[in-house]
Amino acid sequence: MSTKPRIVVLGAGYAGMMTTKKLMKKLSPEEAEIILVNKHNYHYQTTWLHEVAAGTINQNQVRIMIKDIINPNRVRLIYDTVVNIDKENKTVILENSELTYDYLVIALGYETNTFGIKGMEKHAFFIEDFESCQLIREHIEYQFAKFKNDPEADESSLTILVGGGGFTGIEFVGELVEKVPKLCKKYDIDRGKAKIINVEAAPSILPTFDKDLVDYGRKSLQERGAEILEGTRINECTEEGFLVGDNNELIKAGTIVWTGGVKGSSILGKAGFEITKGRVTVNNDLRVAGHDNIFILGDCAWVMNKEDNRPYPPTAQAAMQHASTCANNIRAILHNEPLEEFVFSDKGTVASLGVTDGMGKVIKDTKLFGKPAAAMKKVVDDRYLFLLGGLKLLLKKGKVRPF
Amino acid sequence: MSTKPRIVVLGAGYAGMMTTKKLMKKLSPEEAEIILVNKHNYHYQTTWLHEVAAGTINQNQVRIMIKDIINPNRVRLIYDTVVNIDKENKTVILENSELTYDYLVIALGYETNTFGIKGMEKHAFFIEDFESCQLIREHIEYQFAKFKNDPEADESSLTILVGGGGFTGIEFVGELVEKVPKLCKKYDIDRGKAKIINVEAAPSILPTFDKDLVDYGRKSLQERGAEILEGTRINECTEEGFLVGDNNELIKAGTIVWTGGVKGSSILGKAGFEITKGRVTVNNDLRVAGHDNIFILGDCAWVMNKEDNRPYPPTAQAAMQHASTCANNIRAILHNEPLEEFVFSDKGTVASLGVTDGMGKVIKDTKLFGKPAAAMKKVVDDRYLFLLGGLKLLLKKGKVRPF
Repeated sequence: MSTKPRIVVLGAGYAGMMTTKKLMKKLSPEEAEIILVNKHNYHYQTTWLHEVAAGTINQNQVRIMIKDIINPNRVRLIYDTVVNIDKENKTVILENSELTYDYLVIALGYETNTFGIKGMEKHAFFIEDFESCQLIREHIEYQFAKFKNDPEADESSLTILVGGGGFTGIEFVGELVEKVPKLCKKYDIDRGKAKIINVEAAPSILPTFDKDLVDYGRKSLQERGAEILEGTRINECTEEGFLVGDNNELIKAGTIVWTGGVKGSSILGKAGFEITKGRVTVNNDLRVAGHDNIFILGDCAWVMNKEDNRPYPPTAQAAMQHASTCANNIRAILHNEPLEEFVFSDKGTVASLGVTDGMGKVIKDTKLFGKPAAAMKKVVDDRYLFLLGGLKLLLKKGKVRPF
Repeated sequence: MSTKPRIVVLGAGYAGMMTTKKLMKKLSPEEAEIILVNKHNYHYQTTWLHEVAAGTINQNQVRIMIKDIINPNRVRLIYDTVVNIDKENKTVILENSELTYDYLVIALGYETNTFGIKGMEKHAFFIEDFESCQLIREHIEYQFAKFKNDPEADESSLTILVGGGGFTGIEFVGELVEKVPKLCKKYDIDRGKAKIINVEAAPSILPTFDKDLVDYGRKSLQERGAEILEGTRINECTEEGFLVGDNNELIKAGTIVWTGGVKGSSILGKAGFEITKGRVTVNNDLRVAGHDNIFILGDCAWVMNKEDNRPYPPTAQAAMQHASTCANNIRAILHNEPLEEFVFSDKGTVASLGVTDGMGKVIKDTKLFGKPAAAMKKVVDDRYLFLLGGLKLLLKKGKVRPF
């Protein structure tokens, strides 16, 4: 019987995968047992999901089998869904079993937040996981195929309505402006009939970006046929589309996708953690107050920036940095060493606007527009693959071919 | 003003395309004006449509731009839909114009025949044209994508129900047994959940094939997971599936495709031709009795076999042979020469059962099974491409790569 401490990592997203990988390296097999729990036997690139939803990427490029990255002889892999966490008894309840832990890493990622907009949950698709994005892709193409076979079909069935002009919404529209002309060609449909409409309640899309970047992005999308409706409040989502603005005007669409908000996994609330705006605020060592053996990472956590006493924005970049701090701190506990505090190191943010366009800011306020930005975005994506699975994975799934 | 006789060919299927191509060769530009009318600007491989519907072929391989085959400087190409034919005034009424003719070739192909089975028209898809088959393909994949995103989804939504065990139905099932496992893999669905069911009212599928060929085909499909229900009458098609047999048993399915029958274009009846079992019986020179200037070819025509006084089966092979007789006879009329009579030259029939399996009979009762049959089928498909567009087209769209 093993008396080694058992570390259980919940979720194989950016935070969970990187934590597990770092723990494998930092701890010897004699020091601790490591278990990774995930719903599927694959990890997927959350930040590429909008490309799956638009159908602009080969879906196999987005999925990575967990066992290709994590050695199953060193880490026990359990493919099951987390149902709840019993903190009293240090037990994770899975759909098909239960699992005790000594140290728990909660990295269960995000769920869509509709902010209670009426009908959104029922009638809109979400860019939420691999499967939901496959469905969006198939739904869009199905509208085009149906339009050609129904002489009574309304042109609005071809309209794709994207709620939310944040990062995901705008990157998704960037893919759509490239995908829709291809669908029009495939199904012999006049390009003018298929609309792409983005609706954002705030005065501007991409609120965290500087104005010149936003202006560039907006213009790029508009020039390729997208409509960007800013300062437009969505009152309700119906089967037909969005009801917007003071006059409750109906924007009809055959495909409705909501990208306007996310929150941490609903397991957090179920397990009795205190929730602030959908997430758990953790200490700067990434542990939850009152639970020295529980770490919460990635999209489930608010980590405070001590400089301005505001939380760091929860991004994939941050999630990967959480992983490093978390793995170091688990090792520190096992070695009776002091724990480190998380400090976010901003590598900049680049948004893609399709394959060949993009914009963003990298280190020291260097701004990028157009093709260099698109290339940089692919380099960012590839850097992660390299960190996760080395050169082998980069060559297999990478977006930039080094030769 | 031209005083040359005007030949109008309606339909760019196998019969219409080959007739036009042969007329181009046999008649000088001074001898006759030639006009080809077709709904779309492309010709498609009708006998490959089941592969489009299953999604096992790149759809671009199935479509050929008409102007790549027919020189538009020699033949006037009109892309429009035929609404009616006014034989009195020798005029074809199109959706957007009218067109007089001196000689008319009606090669408008087939429509689906549901034999009045209740609900079939409303609830089943048809393997009828390029667009209807794109829709079937998208509908099937959509069922798989939806199944993964709906925890309440019924497994029967993955079932594909194919009505009719004739040539098209069985070739379609042959593609499905290869496609469905791929879809299951793509969407992480257990193969056992996705059923493929073929329903045939007659005691046996493929009634025109010899018993040993039928036995081979049935076994091949069953071994790859298809259910073949022979001697099973479909009483009604509902939104949910087929009601079959004496007890009106319901077979539920998410995709229902009817392949059980075809008839000639409905324009034939509208134009006042005498219809027998959905087609017009023509003289052996392929002209209609009482109309010395109207030829009817391909799936619109019954051509009698004088040896047994029964009509030849209307196949793609026969349609192409009709084209040759028709072009020769139009030339004969213009040259005041005697007309020839059509005699079908049977080159055999090979059915594909997916990419690597098939069976059929070629010249002199030589039977083929398995891989040789599959290869022969591709050779047959390629032979047509060669006849239609020479080596260039064969290399571009062919199924067998010569090097």
